[in-house]
Amino acid sequence: MEVLNAKGTRDYSGEEAIIRERIVKLLRSIFEMYGFSPLDGPILERYETLSAKYAGGAEILKETFRLVDQGKRDLGLRYDLTVPLARFLAMNPQTKLPFKRYQIGKVFRDGPVSSNRIREFTQCDVDIVGTRSLAADAEMLAIAYEFLTKIGIKPIIKVNNRKVLNTIIDDCGIEKESRDFVILAIDKFDKIEEKGVKEELFAKGIPPDKIIKLFKLLKSDNLKLSDEQGLIELKEVLKFAGLFGVKNIKVDYSLARGLAYYTGTVFEVYAGDVKEAITAGGRYDKMIGEFMGSGSYPAVGISFGLERVSNLVLNSKNPGVYTESKTVTTVYIIPIGIFDEAVNVLNELRKAGINSDIDLSNRGISRNLDYADKLKIPYVLFIGKQELSKNKFKLRDMRTGKEELFSIKNLIKKLTE
Amino acid sequence: MEVLNAKGTRDYSGEEAIIRERIVKLLRSIFEMYGFSPLDGPILERYETLSAKYAGGAEILKETFRLVDQGKRDLGLRYDLTVPLARFLAMNPQTKLPFKRYQIGKVFRDGPVSSNRIREFTQCDVDIVGTRSLAADAEMLAIAYEFLTKIGIKPIIKVNNRKVLNTIIDDCGIEKESRDFVILAIDKFDKIEEKGVKEELFAKGIPPDKIIKLFKLLKSDNLKLSDEQGLIELKEVLKFAGLFGVKNIKVDYSLARGLAYYTGTVFEVYAGDVKEAITAGGRYDKMIGEFMGSGSYPAVGISFGLERVSNLVLNSKNPGVYTESKTVTTVYIIPIGIFDEAVNVLNELRKAGINSDIDLSNRGISRNLDYADKLKIPYVLFIGKQELSKNKFKLRDMRTGKEELFSIKNLIKKLTE
Repeated sequence: MEVLNAKGTRDYSGEEAIIRERIVKLLRSIFEMYGFSPLDGPILERYETLSAKYAGGAEILKETFRLVDQGKRDLGLRYDLTVPLARFLAMNPQTKLPFKRYQIGKVFRDGPVSSNRIREFTQCDVDIVGTRSLAADAEMLAIAYEFLTKIGIKPIIKVNNRKVLNTIIDDCGIEKESRDFVILAIDKFDKIEEKGVKEELFAKGIPPDKIIKLFKLLKSDNLKLSDEQGLIELKEVLKFAGLFGVKNIKVDYSLARGLAYYTGTVFEVYAGDVKEAITAGGRYDKMIGEFMGSGSYPAVGISFGLERVSNLVLNSKNPGVYTESKTVTTVYIIPIGIFDEAVNVLNELRKAGINSDIDLSNRGISRNLDYADKLKIPYVLFIGKQELSKNKFKLRDMRTGKEELFSIKNLIKKLTE
Repeated sequence: MEVLNAKGTRDYSGEEAIIRERIVKLLRSIFEMYGFSPLDGPILERYETLSAKYAGGAEILKETFRLVDQGKRDLGLRYDLTVPLARFLAMNPQTKLPFKRYQIGKVFRDGPVSSNRIREFTQCDVDIVGTRSLAADAEMLAIAYEFLTKIGIKPIIKVNNRKVLNTIIDDCGIEKESRDFVILAIDKFDKIEEKGVKEELFAKGIPPDKIIKLFKLLKSDNLKLSDEQGLIELKEVLKFAGLFGVKNIKVDYSLARGLAYYTGTVFEVYAGDVKEAITAGGRYDKMIGEFMGSGSYPAVGISFGLERVSNLVLNSKNPGVYTESKTVTTVYIIPIGIFDEAVNVLNELRKAGINSDIDLSNRGISRNLDYADKLKIPYVLFIGKQELSKNKFKLRDMRTGKEELFSIKNLIKKLTE
């Protein structure tokens, strides 16, 4: 038998698994600090839910994993956390609004695989459902700003508003029917640059004079539009973001975001010169209500891709979240001849909350040191008869090789520093 | 469109979602304290892996969700976290042993649905691969003991050893070929009681005198066997468990555990008089090595079912992990007429690490109080012009209705208590 993982899936072990845990922990603590509470739900959804008219749309359905259960029911693996949120609200209409929930979970896309695209990945989503206040939009930016700052990365935040984009397209004399593909073309700006976007629009039959006017407006420093609503909203989001202490925001009228369901604010957050956005989101005031069939459920959300954030931390090597350890163990006990008494010391360390391990296999000192070294465990503690009788234990700092004697009390103090 | 979740799946919201998070956090901290590090891996596995000879076996394969990807590859959703662990080790033979890993993730079983059985659930697994030391088995018991004690439940631990059970069956003169189904019958002891097990064995052709002898040995207080190895191991596990401070252990020779792959220690941990085990596990010295095709990979593990533990906490209502709050928010700010200045106070509270929220929708006081009350947010803070000018803010304890004035500094002190 050939032993392989499924195409487009990955294991995460050693330092990468530890870094992922730390990122999730940090995101979770920030989400909770901002008043969001957890929601957890199934990966399996009825295919009818995933393929609903106001759900993810045709493009994403092509990449949806489908399956049937023993009762021949049509199922699929969720491709995002937003459609399940809409389904949850539809099933729980008594939910108190505004509903501020975060959700961290696996999503699946049966698409082409590349170094940057896998088929099973983890999204960390935050959404506020039930308020039109643009302070909610600003809270999303605040969360992104706080998270990136805490992992030692200077964030660059780009914001725009779909109403601005729509009015720009209108004001160029481009018909409403062309709006969606014009927005999709503008969304490729970063990938195919101005020339590419222009060619695509021309190929789709937009006259050159309108394309020129479009780019003039998209790059304008002092935009005047026939309908100011989008610009007013943008200004208000910037004001609220300022109140929340968010810095480094740039308005970019050419920022589009691909998804059809955005209705207002859209934003992308970049880390230094990394080309792809680290996190992004926007306001979608109609999607949930349309999904539910009735009622008003304005919403705004942000989504962090765990794999992308994790790569950023692995590459930046900033202390805090980054670790080069392959274990979370702080100290590894090497018993010399006496296991039982060494366990007493181990118990003390664990009781003090120190991540501690011990050689269970009665190996020699050099094999044990090699083990601790390979796993990059920071400290090794030797416990032999002599140490026990004097109640002093030799702690070796594995990074410096320095050895020192400690009583248990001082050992705990040293290791909880 | 009918809006439903997929059969056998569930959403977790409000206090239940919060309790799940707290349980996972506590388990994770205990796992790490005991020297285990995280491993994360895919839910999608190649069907060939899940159906391998030494994997879960025919019974579990019947309940495996199968699907194909766009490249027509045969895939399945993992039904446990042990087979993926074996697959990971087979792909990473350079992994340093002993390998102490924990993994928390969703698993799937396409089986009958009941109040106690769903199709998508979360397992929290700990395994030590690469040591025959029975101190490793004792660490599993220590983890279970520590966890249950920390959630305020008195654990009752039952242990046995498969070698004991095998020798008991041999010593009754029952042929080796019948061993597996005799063990499966004994495993049903809790469900169908002694009478039921006896009937099942008789129906399978075991003569009555052998059945009587079998039960005499299973209930013996002073067991003597032709092969003492299992009894020696049991004694040693008890000794090590004592060293780790584990209490309330009972040897139960009739404890079998259903899975075929156990080779030594088996155990189940009960919470008070709850009929079903809260967590269980055992030693499986051959499975991983056979899966990998070569090499010796003795292993021992324990698995906590998150749903079962969560029900226990919900029912016991013990403080610590239990909460009746529907949010993690500590304080909810009601701005009276002035939003922008209230955000400054909000920023201060969040900076101090207090989970804080604010009314974004400019609602009236009574609607805001109703919102905070329904979500069981413990504190509400009123911020109006008067409060700002005096730099004193009125905090209302929502449980008692008591209101008090605080400066920001004292407010932070009060809320971080």
